Amino acid sequence: MVESGVEAYAVPGFLANGIHVGIKEGGRKDLALIFSGAPAKAAGVFTGNCFKAAPVLLDMERIKEGMAQAILANSGNANAATGQEGYKDALAISRGISEKLRIRDELVLVASTGVIGNRLPIKKIEASMGRLVEGLHTNGIPDAEEAIMTTDKFPKIASRKGMAGSKEVTLCGIAKGAGMIEPSMATMLAFFMTDADIDHHTLNTIFRQAVNKSFNAITVDGCMSTNDTAIILANGVAGNNPLKRPSRHLTIFKEMLFSVTSYLAQSIVRDGEGATKLIEIVVEEARSTGDAKKVACKVANSNLVKTAFFGGDPNWGRIVSAIGSAGVLLTVDAVCIYLEEIPVFAGGRGIADGEKRLSEIMDKTDIRLRISLGMGNKKFRLYTSDLSFDYVKINAHYHT
Amino acid sequence: MVESGVEAYAVPGFLANGIHVGIKEGGRKDLALIFSGAPAKAAGVFTGNCFKAAPVLLDMERIKEGMAQAILANSGNANAATGQEGYKDALAISRGISEKLRIRDELVLVASTGVIGNRLPIKKIEASMGRLVEGLHTNGIPDAEEAIMTTDKFPKIASRKGMAGSKEVTLCGIAKGAGMIEPSMATMLAFFMTDADIDHHTLNTIFRQAVNKSFNAITVDGCMSTNDTAIILANGVAGNNPLKRPSRHLTIFKEMLFSVTSYLAQSIVRDGEGATKLIEIVVEEARSTGDAKKVACKVANSNLVKTAFFGGDPNWGRIVSAIGSAGVLLTVDAVCIYLEEIPVFAGGRGIADGEKRLSEIMDKTDIRLRISLGMGNKKFRLYTSDLSFDYVKINAHYHT
Repeated sequence: MVESGVEAYAVPGFLANGIHVGIKEGGRKDLALIFSGAPAKAAGVFTGNCFKAAPVLLDMERIKEGMAQAILANSGNANAATGQEGYKDALAISRGISEKLRIRDELVLVASTGVIGNRLPIKKIEASMGRLVEGLHTNGIPDAEEAIMTTDKFPKIASRKGMAGSKEVTLCGIAKGAGMIEPSMATMLAFFMTDADIDHHTLNTIFRQAVNKSFNAITVDGCMSTNDTAIILANGVAGNNPLKRPSRHLTIFKEMLFSVTSYLAQSIVRDGEGATKLIEIVVEEARSTGDAKKVACKVANSNLVKTAFFGGDPNWGRIVSAIGSAGVLLTVDAVCIYLEEIPVFAGGRGIADGEKRLSEIMDKTDIRLRISLGMGNKKFRLYTSDLSFDYVKINAHYHT
Repeated sequence: MVESGVEAYAVPGFLANGIHVGIKEGGRKDLALIFSGAPAKAAGVFTGNCFKAAPVLLDMERIKEGMAQAILANSGNANAATGQEGYKDALAISRGISEKLRIRDELVLVASTGVIGNRLPIKKIEASMGRLVEGLHTNGIPDAEEAIMTTDKFPKIASRKGMAGSKEVTLCGIAKGAGMIEPSMATMLAFFMTDADIDHHTLNTIFRQAVNKSFNAITVDGCMSTNDTAIILANGVAGNNPLKRPSRHLTIFKEMLFSVTSYLAQSIVRDGEGATKLIEIVVEEARSTGDAKKVACKVANSNLVKTAFFGGDPNWGRIVSAIGSAGVLLTVDAVCIYLEEIPVFAGGRGIADGEKRLSEIMDKTDIRLRISLGMGNKKFRLYTSDLSFDYVKINAHYHT
């Protein structure tokens, strides 16, 4: 189980803080800092968008070194589509915070989320850095989370503890989501802090696996962000024997990581813009995982499917239509579709009876859709949300 | 110019009719028949969806012969995902109408649109065939159009006349759209009638070209239907010298065809479910037409872009983000984005000033977006609609 409570979110050797500096309106927190007392092993996964935001470009360069000590993140402004100036802005706030923290500038990672296309208000940020650093505290991770939220309705934070030999290790993750959420990479921002001592190559490998099974397996609106960033810092303060594969201790740590990333990814979908439902889509018996993912994404991103889920309408014909348009080789007669335990389509035709039970299923807030392609033995699991009036409302006027 | 008026829609040698037989509720017309006194050259383009509806499967087989004499089309029921029984239903209504019309059964094409997954009420259809045939008349094409509409708010019908040598030739087209509209193939149903005498191979070639530039260049919701069907019948009654390429007369006819298909395709977008705006997206300076189309589709189908257009919000950052996620090789600094005549993005950064003019543009009902990739000399033009509350409203409860 994922642990909760402010104290459970503290990770030995890490300090954090989140404050309001005036990037967002209304006094809401908008600048976060996560700091490890010791340089930490670092791994990151970033957006596949060609138009990578300035902080993403900077982090991708710095993460190659494999070490980091601080993450400075802001909400309210994405510092994307800001050209060379935007990159210089990212460098400037990194330099500012590294001086205050008295660490090597190259050990700072930066992240931004919010509106695309505006310059960062770096004066405001720099003027508040003293206050941000002075306020760093061991229970500050929830404050940092609050400061990276944009249209999120609730904070996304999760923690796990486990044993690595005789030493207890802690892992805590925070994320923000809401809009521009699609596989590869899905979350806009997610940061993970652990005191585990782990080999850098191993950390990198298992972090990528965890991200692929979680943040790269969710979609809210099919829109890939310019700023998607997932970073993990492991500072080794727990003093365990360094984790390398394969080992039982690594398996435990991996399990902790997977449960935290999965929990946060599902939280992002549950809090998708305007979402009223969480829909799990399992595509199985595919020829390849790629095929399974293509079908899952096509169904998950179909506005007709999403609006049917919003309306509680068991309109499985739209699911059939979406599957058929995924660009995957199919034998129509081999495809079966299940809504929870009820088969609704098989042998090329609808076989649903019991409309009442189907309506009951569609009225739930958590719904499971299973699609069996009958072509092989590969599968993919994806989580998505429905498409509601509120999605339109939130996004028709976000910018202005 | 496209001609209008009931008489302009008559095509020599063609009769048509549309009546209510009880497939749809509320007395609305739901069964259409188009009939050519003489067997006509026929060409068709059909959905790329793997789950092709029964009438599509039947037509694809029959159109190979290159000749047809009647199109029987219904709305209110798609006869899709109905298995072998659905195919037999399509055969049965074809046989019924061919007997009434006293023509070879193989010369009948059928088309259906509406809810997926229910069997056709063939008894109701067969019982009304006598009335349908008796009511055939020279000015019946608008009635046929009315009978193929589903959530369409207005009929889509267009006609052109032109000279082929000393003979006048007429072309009339009808279409229905509204939802499940995406390139390849976009329209759900479109039928074209002409009295031109034209070589079959030539007809097939220019019809495919026309469809690619019109119905395959629009998107409303990115959902590909199981029933998309576009058919043209050319009965040769005009008595012109048969059109073959290349010739001036063929060029004139092609121009007539392109203008009618373009007009109908744009009408479909304008009447897209919940649409309040028609957005023309031109992607130019691409390495290939395929690249240009990929970028255009990604932007057109982005819910964030579509809701911004609905809200009248010049949020070009979302356009940038969509372009970058299209999976096309890009040089970020080479991309330029224009909203009408105003450049908003170039050199990797936003360059918009004059927010007032941008807001004026976004308030219009017809908006032109131009994206120059700076990578080559290929282009693609696409029409799309915005995403509004009404799209959600219409689709949350369409089925039940």
